[in-house]
Amino acid sequence: MAKFIEQGTRYQLDDPCIAPNSAAYLWNPKMMLHMNCRGFAVSQYMDPEPRKYAHVPNLAGQSFMQPEQPYFSHHPGRFFYLRDEQTGEMFSAPYEPMKSQLDSFAFEPGLSDIRWRIEKLGIELVITLELAADEVLELWTVQLRNLSGRARRLSLIPYFPVGYSSWMNMGGRFDAQLNAIVCSCVTPYQKVEDYFKHQHFKDLTFLTADRAPDFYEVGLQRFEGEGGLHNPSALQDGQNLANGEAHYEMPAAIMQFSYELLADESTELRLGFGPAKDESEIAALKQRFIEADPSLNRQALAQYIGEAKGVIDIDTPDAQLNDFVNHWLPRQVFYHGDSNRLTTDPQTRNYLQDAMGMVYIKPQACRVAIITALQQQAVSGEMPDGILLSDEAELKYINQVPHTDHPVWLAIVLSAYLRETNDYALLDEPLGWADSDETACVFEHVSRAMEYLCQANDERGLPYIAQGDWCDPMNMVGYQGKGVSGWLAEAISYALQLWSPICRQRQANERAERFEAHVGGLNQRINQNFWDGQWFGRGITDQGVLFGVSDDKEGRIFLNAQSWALLCGAANGEQQQAMLQAIDQQLDTPYGVMMSAPAFTAMRDDVGRVTQKWPGSAENGSVYNHAAAFYATSLYTVGESERAFEVLRKMLPDNSAEELAVRGQLPVYLPNYYRGAYYQYPRTAGRSSNLFNTGTCAWFYQLMVEQLFGLRGDEQGLRVQPQLPQGWPSASVTRQFRGASVRIDFVREGDKVSGDVGPANLVEHNRVTNGKRTPQVSSVRIEQLTEHCFRLTELKAGQHYHLICHIGSVTAVHSQAEASSL
Amino acid sequence: MAKFIEQGTRYQLDDPCIAPNSAAYLWNPKMMLHMNCRGFAVSQYMDPEPRKYAHVPNLAGQSFMQPEQPYFSHHPGRFFYLRDEQTGEMFSAPYEPMKSQLDSFAFEPGLSDIRWRIEKLGIELVITLELAADEVLELWTVQLRNLSGRARRLSLIPYFPVGYSSWMNMGGRFDAQLNAIVCSCVTPYQKVEDYFKHQHFKDLTFLTADRAPDFYEVGLQRFEGEGGLHNPSALQDGQNLANGEAHYEMPAAIMQFSYELLADESTELRLGFGPAKDESEIAALKQRFIEADPSLNRQALAQYIGEAKGVIDIDTPDAQLNDFVNHWLPRQVFYHGDSNRLTTDPQTRNYLQDAMGMVYIKPQACRVAIITALQQQAVSGEMPDGILLSDEAELKYINQVPHTDHPVWLAIVLSAYLRETNDYALLDEPLGWADSDETACVFEHVSRAMEYLCQANDERGLPYIAQGDWCDPMNMVGYQGKGVSGWLAEAISYALQLWSPICRQRQANERAERFEAHVGGLNQRINQNFWDGQWFGRGITDQGVLFGVSDDKEGRIFLNAQSWALLCGAANGEQQQAMLQAIDQQLDTPYGVMMSAPAFTAMRDDVGRVTQKWPGSAENGSVYNHAAAFYATSLYTVGESERAFEVLRKMLPDNSAEELAVRGQLPVYLPNYYRGAYYQYPRTAGRSSNLFNTGTCAWFYQLMVEQLFGLRGDEQGLRVQPQLPQGWPSASVTRQFRGASVRIDFVREGDKVSGDVGPANLVEHNRVTNGKRTPQVSSVRIEQLTEHCFRLTELKAGQHYHLICHIGSVTAVHSQAEASSL
Repeated sequence: MAKFIEQGTRYQLDDPCIAPNSAAYLWNPKMMLHMNCRGFAVSQYMDPEPRKYAHVPNLAGQSFMQPEQPYFSHHPGRFFYLRDEQTGEMFSAPYEPMKSQLDSFAFEPGLSDIRWRIEKLGIELVITLELAADEVLELWTVQLRNLSGRARRLSLIPYFPVGYSSWMNMGGRFDAQLNAIVCSCVTPYQKVEDYFKHQHFKDLTFLTADRAPDFYEVGLQRFEGEGGLHNPSALQDGQNLANGEAHYEMPAAIMQFSYELLADESTELRLGFGPAKDESEIAALKQRFIEADPSLNRQALAQYIGEAKGVIDIDTPDAQLNDFVNHWLPRQVFYHGDSNRLTTDPQTRNYLQDAMGMVYIKPQACRVAIITALQQQAVSGEMPDGILLSDEAELKYINQVPHTDHPVWLAIVLSAYLRETNDYALLDEPLGWADSDETACVFEHVSRAMEYLCQANDERGLPYIAQGDWCDPMNMVGYQGKGVSGWLAEAISYALQLWSPICRQRQANERAERFEAHVGGLNQRINQNFWDGQWFGRGITDQGVLFGVSDDKEGRIFLNAQSWALLCGAANGEQQQAMLQAIDQQLDTPYGVMMSAPAFTAMRDDVGRVTQKWPGSAENGSVYNHAAAFYATSLYTVGESERAFEVLRKMLPDNSAEELAVRGQLPVYLPNYYRGAYYQYPRTAGRSSNLFNTGTCAWFYQLMVEQLFGLRGDEQGLRVQPQLPQGWPSASVTRQFRGASVRIDFVREGDKVSGDVGPANLVEHNRVTNGKRTPQVSSVRIEQLTEHCFRLTELKAGQHYHLICHIGSVTAVHSQAEASSL
Repeated sequence: MAKFIEQGTRYQLDDPCIAPNSAAYLWNPKMMLHMNCRGFAVSQYMDPEPRKYAHVPNLAGQSFMQPEQPYFSHHPGRFFYLRDEQTGEMFSAPYEPMKSQLDSFAFEPGLSDIRWRIEKLGIELVITLELAADEVLELWTVQLRNLSGRARRLSLIPYFPVGYSSWMNMGGRFDAQLNAIVCSCVTPYQKVEDYFKHQHFKDLTFLTADRAPDFYEVGLQRFEGEGGLHNPSALQDGQNLANGEAHYEMPAAIMQFSYELLADESTELRLGFGPAKDESEIAALKQRFIEADPSLNRQALAQYIGEAKGVIDIDTPDAQLNDFVNHWLPRQVFYHGDSNRLTTDPQTRNYLQDAMGMVYIKPQACRVAIITALQQQAVSGEMPDGILLSDEAELKYINQVPHTDHPVWLAIVLSAYLRETNDYALLDEPLGWADSDETACVFEHVSRAMEYLCQANDERGLPYIAQGDWCDPMNMVGYQGKGVSGWLAEAISYALQLWSPICRQRQANERAERFEAHVGGLNQRINQNFWDGQWFGRGITDQGVLFGVSDDKEGRIFLNAQSWALLCGAANGEQQQAMLQAIDQQLDTPYGVMMSAPAFTAMRDDVGRVTQKWPGSAENGSVYNHAAAFYATSLYTVGESERAFEVLRKMLPDNSAEELAVRGQLPVYLPNYYRGAYYQYPRTAGRSSNLFNTGTCAWFYQLMVEQLFGLRGDEQGLRVQPQLPQGWPSASVTRQFRGASVRIDFVREGDKVSGDVGPANLVEHNRVTNGKRTPQVSSVRIEQLTEHCFRLTELKAGQHYHLICHIGSVTAVHSQAEASSL
């Protein structure tokens, strides 16, 4: 059975046919690579815009990955044929292109490498892929071991397709001096100005090795022949590769290495694959990464991936969750925050939420991101649709479509940053504006963003949606300038409630009052305009039609409109119960909560492009995890922690073959969606997009820290207010907080309903300073805040604390937690 | 052996492995389809911009076909699996995807259909593809015949992949009412304005049949399974297709039809495949083309393709040439002129030369094209880079790069049009300008274009090249505003020499004199600035460097600079001999004459993008047939008719397996290039681009008519001045000319060198009027113009003339012909 191995730092899938497209990803600051269990790959590097060095076999559209990215036999990948020279028998690893039945198969993605273990014909192949820590380069190691008990003659044939790189010029040859297959192309262009822009392009793709191949082939067609990739003509009848070149022919990097292995003997081959500008760059990369001690790069990689460390280490009864939250979730959060999703113009909303994730990984990066974003703000308070990360960057694609929600995320990320770091000094940093020579401090910037949000209202006092809010493709509700967003009204209310205390902290009481007054009015208007009897509508179109309501046959209910009504306090207790019931009935599925239902099956042109997406995919009624994370946040906020945990837990596949077959993905990352349309398209419901770019991970992490374990910072210290599932008898967490380390062992006391076990039972256990255990009692102070919430203050950086906390039933805790705003 | 069959109206290739990518094409006024012998296809229709209904399996770049278009197993195509239900044996037709060895194979493209005849397992499959005459629809007929002498149970499984149509929405299902697999998608977009632009899109792709399938599958992945396209899991172990659908999964239209055939019994299946806007359009297409009598469409098709009839019918000792010139060449010329290469903004140069081809097919279409182009001319005389064919059309891609040669082609096409039609009235047509409210007659328009050409000169009096002349990618010779084109100087001189007699015909003598004076000066300046001792240089760069000269290591000699020096009369006899020798030595190859040599192997940034194309491909030193046709024109002009014919003849592959393997294409169209770089990359030299969009065909046709057979119109009548190859003892031609039909049987008289047999030997043979042979002597008059040129005048429309003409050695004719300008 599939499972986490090596203390949760590696996953193991033992069958290439259960979830054929399941995958893992590696990245470094310059590139990223998505690799599926069968050897298909999508890789991309920044130059400064995203580029590829292995291509599909036809002129491709400019894109990275698509949801549920399809693979086909000639899709880019990295493959190894193995041929027994005595019998002519052959198979390919990891599985494609021959797809032979293997004696054993293991796909084992780790935190900083991807490994396969394959056995067939008495030969074991251990294939490992790492990236160079700081270059665009794949490093492959193939260990061959003879398990057969007799001497063997073998050929190992790495086949790395390079694909159709250019209609202008493409080819490839073996360069003996570099010991590399070097494929070249000229990136196609027509305008002379592009020639100058392309000067720095890495138009070479190379495969080099630590030993000379015995034979090679660069022409794909001559390799395949009439046999095809599953049985290449060039390898039939004991033939060796013909040392062919590709001259304006589809190139592939194919080398043949001959081995004679005694019984139990093993050998190792090392390969490097990547792009380069010229031969000297290949030589330098080869020297540094193929000829040098591989442990140097591994150390650098370990150091880099070591940064992907979060603020909690958990030990709960849910082993899958532990492994994911301790290793894979912070890794995904760090990937987002450090790579900016490999774009030069991240959407403002994504950029800010990814920065929110960095609060728990590398708060300084969050600080930089906030400053970077605010420097691109207009003096009116308006935020741009995307944040430009370099001078050459420009707003592209979806960032050319006007959205109205971007300022909302400023308050959310700032609030999280301040809770975690207490770095109120950030608010005083002076920054410029995109369209003015003035400067103003961060506090002023964000306050103006909030004011901007308060102003863009129609005659009813509801915020315009323009061509989209959080939901990008909801582009035709308000494109005529009238439509408004119910969700945005709620989000503004929530954002103001996060910002207003910060105003008060700054003694900006008048501003705070204005914001609070706006919240009051807004929540009233939300109820007046959007409440549909059982749930809140999603918006009002240019034509004045309220949608996302019970009269709608499709798109009757939208999750976000409920979640944020809970978050912003617009829903009273009665409304909450009705909404939760509606969500359970209409949106909940075994694979998570759908974002809307029923999914649209035809264009609704007063709602827009979202209704044209495949029903149950992406924003059209999938289990869109980002929205589900908002929902979980709102559930924790109103004390519905059992529901909240269930929502989060469903994002993580379990290990059974049945589950993996349905999901089609491994529990090593959160995908942006699982298919929804559960009642409309049951066959595909639950299928993962296998896209790991998603705002979900920052929220999931925050909820683990601040809600599930309830370990939230404030100006005085660390609040403790756990909302652990009732089913957990105990759970431990070690929390890194402002330089201190706090371990808390939560132990549940019986089945009591009322919360009679609180901070009084807290026991200080020991303290470790500078690695030495000291017997002294710590100076930590415990303040009782509410019956189920206490605060640790006077925690000292560099010190470790251990506490045991007896908690009562979570239900009780919740009924209290409701009183304290998030 | 491969050969023309059915009186040359069909070709037969008998092996799918000799020239795997060899292909044929079909088109109608709305679409076109390029089909290779193995079943791979590229199809496109106009909507109004080019669109596809069968896609590659990944997000594709916007394009039609690439030179040497690569195919791979999942490339779009149309395939038929055949399974013996008693034995489970299976093969696929026409060849892919199973690529089984067949008992017999014939790929038989015809003028208006494409046919395969396949035999395997005792079953004959005759597969025929036609297009609907006036709709975007493929019509397939499959005849199954049981040759095995015993009763058989068979399944025929058409597999028509639909591919990755959209990341927003794609899927497919079987619609029982339509008896069709209907695949749907939403063409991806992000901006709301595009939604409105896309309203009319045909986002459905359907496969319908004249009987209900017994089973079907729409999900490609479920069809392939672990087996792959060469052995689909869904067809293994006698399974029938599972009637699956595609829900945001890669769709394919796959039907399974069961048959029981007695010995010698046969059956027929008819299928329709194409795009539609909605189900009602599918229903209508099905009714009209699948349910109705197929002969109706065949008649309409025959009528349409019947328009592709040229003005000559030839009978020479070269059977391959006869079949090509009588059937396939006029078809290709008509395709260009009638479809405008399926673009809405043809390059001005292409548009005008394609119109020149129509002079011999449908002169009225040429007239319309000239008027259309001139209406888009600026009042300055400048021509735009592309001609917009609809209100929504815009200048795209290469048409956004400024080129300086466009006016040249006006004089060339006008001159050809007037020679053929004598329609001087066209010159009086009043037309507007793109940038003025004035109107002016066609004569004035073209004269201003010529004046514009005379004016854009540098201080040496040489014409600027800007970012390209005829050679699009020669974009950096003059992008700084200084570089000049030697070729363009020659082309201007030639164009003025064509236009000046027309000025004189119009009594615009002063204009004529100005043009003639410019020619005189220009030819002198060409010699002063470009003559390199043995040949003419190609241009002078922004930095003042003459290139295309003996000092250059790459790009030493450019064919166009020589051809047009011959055409414009800049080269004297001594120069001509030197140039021809240089061409023979440096540019001639067994596959034609290369456009330049040596091909550039690295960027030369004072020449431009042409130097970055793969050496020997396209404009970088291939046998670029368009340029070769110019060269042949110039050779005929200077009396080098043997050389000229050889240049043309090399464009047409012969039937031997060796030749077809090298060329990789069939003699059913002229490709835009064959690989050159003969001395640099001998392995690939001669390989066809398999692109049939090329200005070559119009010139080739004109040369056949006006030079090889020497049947050229003038104001008085039809000149006869043949330049037949010396090796031909005789040749016949029937020439349609201004409504009359003239058959001339040329008979060579011995080996005499001097041309002593001329029009005196002309014998009027008979005359046919209205289908009745009349014994009267025709009223045709014969005027002796030079020793080897006579003119037929007083030919009457609707009459047929038959003459026998004894000719002497062609050499002799040529030495005379030199005196008469083209």
